[in-house]
Amino acid sequence: MKIAVDAMGGDNAPKEIILGVEQARDLYPELEFLLYGDETQLKSFLTDSNHIKVIPTTEMIEMGEEPVRAIRSKKDSSIVRAANAVKDGEADAFFSAGNTGAVLAAGLFIVGRIKGIDRPGLTSILPAAHPDTDKQKFVYLDTGANAESKEKNLVQYAYLGKFYAQKVLGIENPTIALLNNGEEADKGDRLHKAVWQLLDDADDLNFVGNVESSAMLMGKADVVVTDGWTGNAALKATEGTAKTMLALIKDGIMNGGLRAKLGYLLLKPVFSTVGKGMATSTHGGAVLLGLKAPVVKTHGSSNAEAVKNTIGQIKAMIESQVISQAVEYFNNQEVLEKMDKSNEND
Amino acid sequence: MKIAVDAMGGDNAPKEIILGVEQARDLYPELEFLLYGDETQLKSFLTDSNHIKVIPTTEMIEMGEEPVRAIRSKKDSSIVRAANAVKDGEADAFFSAGNTGAVLAAGLFIVGRIKGIDRPGLTSILPAAHPDTDKQKFVYLDTGANAESKEKNLVQYAYLGKFYAQKVLGIENPTIALLNNGEEADKGDRLHKAVWQLLDDADDLNFVGNVESSAMLMGKADVVVTDGWTGNAALKATEGTAKTMLALIKDGIMNGGLRAKLGYLLLKPVFSTVGKGMATSTHGGAVLLGLKAPVVKTHGSSNAEAVKNTIGQIKAMIESQVISQAVEYFNNQEVLEKMDKSNEND
Repeated sequence: MKIAVDAMGGDNAPKEIILGVEQARDLYPELEFLLYGDETQLKSFLTDSNHIKVIPTTEMIEMGEEPVRAIRSKKDSSIVRAANAVKDGEADAFFSAGNTGAVLAAGLFIVGRIKGIDRPGLTSILPAAHPDTDKQKFVYLDTGANAESKEKNLVQYAYLGKFYAQKVLGIENPTIALLNNGEEADKGDRLHKAVWQLLDDADDLNFVGNVESSAMLMGKADVVVTDGWTGNAALKATEGTAKTMLALIKDGIMNGGLRAKLGYLLLKPVFSTVGKGMATSTHGGAVLLGLKAPVVKTHGSSNAEAVKNTIGQIKAMIESQVISQAVEYFNNQEVLEKMDKSNEND
Repeated sequence: MKIAVDAMGGDNAPKEIILGVEQARDLYPELEFLLYGDETQLKSFLTDSNHIKVIPTTEMIEMGEEPVRAIRSKKDSSIVRAANAVKDGEADAFFSAGNTGAVLAAGLFIVGRIKGIDRPGLTSILPAAHPDTDKQKFVYLDTGANAESKEKNLVQYAYLGKFYAQKVLGIENPTIALLNNGEEADKGDRLHKAVWQLLDDADDLNFVGNVESSAMLMGKADVVVTDGWTGNAALKATEGTAKTMLALIKDGIMNGGLRAKLGYLLLKPVFSTVGKGMATSTHGGAVLLGLKAPVVKTHGSSNAEAVKNTIGQIKAMIESQVISQAVEYFNNQEVLEKMDKSNEND
């Protein structure tokens, strides 16, 4: 198993990327790595090149660059070269902590879509954090690869999410819910009403109905399907609220004198559990599901630990053959016709 | 000033509604109330009928009923009768804690829209909770009156929100932001890109650009404009995350033994501050802005305190003449033409 790594992407690149890759290499002897980036920098951080090959690149795509233009013009950037390695069969997967738009564009235009998938969905594994649920996590897509979606895109996400939950998370018959503005079957705009019906009609999906964004973290389903616009707004609101509450608590403790500081010391284990429960990074990076190979993007602020965890996730994806399952499912005339029918109203 | 009250709506009706009305009456001697509902029940809870007139109704709209059908068929329900009182000029405002859809429908079809406003927006006053901001609250609309919106709807919300922030919150030149999936000017789907341009072009709006749902609570602007679909998803995700985090902390304390319980006692003032900071109920109910009179809906679980606060908010709306300002602004050929132009691309 060979993973192509964009070693230049992210706030802490290349140091933390290389550290994380070395940790993953020590943990998983079956993995090999192709490390794309500035040769001098990469070699200065690399302590042991066993199973790691450095491939020099001369260009870099910055965080603010227009993605499609960047991947078209910077052919010798670490992102484009790493994606090409997957396209050419030299690597099985592509990892980056860099410019999200450029990773999406490289995935779409270089690695390529699975036949039958119109648009890949950016997939996160989120914590089912509420203490009242038995679940620990759920698959959530699209978190924002596409600002505008059609019915068939969401139906395809349901299958992609199902395969991921089955193969990578090991859930035999995953439940699937649709993010909507109400729980009842007749809720939503035209798009979501139509998608509800299509998911409910699908015999091979364990569809359990709508879920509201207020109940997302309650573990209503193993897979939550959403259009990228709504999915992005709900996920960012969740992250922003968690941060604001932690900031409020911290502010209260800092300004609460000795009493509050003592209380904090006593409650430290509780805060640590809450922090872990809400953390998304422990569950790996965001997967661009619907491409011909695993393409995974971690947060720009990722440290070596997060890089190592994400590589573990990529390894699980390769081993589970989740992508082959999706390829096989969609490479079927009947399925393609079903998907086309699901957009007749557009 | 006379307020028409649906005394039968909400989980704690009519008791808490009547208690709240009596508290508001004692606080604001200039207010008079028309209380619509079951005569026997209302009279059994009313302790002092000074400035309060009970008007018997024989029908009730339940929480699950289809709104438009309900207000058309139940002519003698408390919601329909109270809305009619406003339409007929017998009352200046309409208050309810009942079926949200039915209140929206009664507002739209009985009280009626301001000329020039295509769709009213459901407006909440949310806490600018993050400790790093100087603001205390912001106006947020549409929270979900409309699942599908056009460009001119969002532009109209910007003006309605501006007038509310000026007149009711007393902010002279309120800043206005657009909820979007990125901060940069070119972010968003077709709708949000077009709205960004229209808001930026408007000389009489203090537009400060996009805000992401992750930064909503950071007090970026006095007014956050959103389509009802996204606004609903982001608001519910915020509420759900706050609840989940509080549940996680509570669970940790309950299962953390004596140490955690002691820590909780010491940090109680901090938790109380956080709870107040995040609470939306202290800022009153949701206003259906864009109607010819104040129509305000509080949460179904409202107690007397919340009812009293919301009546204070309604009083401020009546006194400030915020509605007249909107009527005046939109009753202008130039403005109407500008709004029509803003939908040329549809």
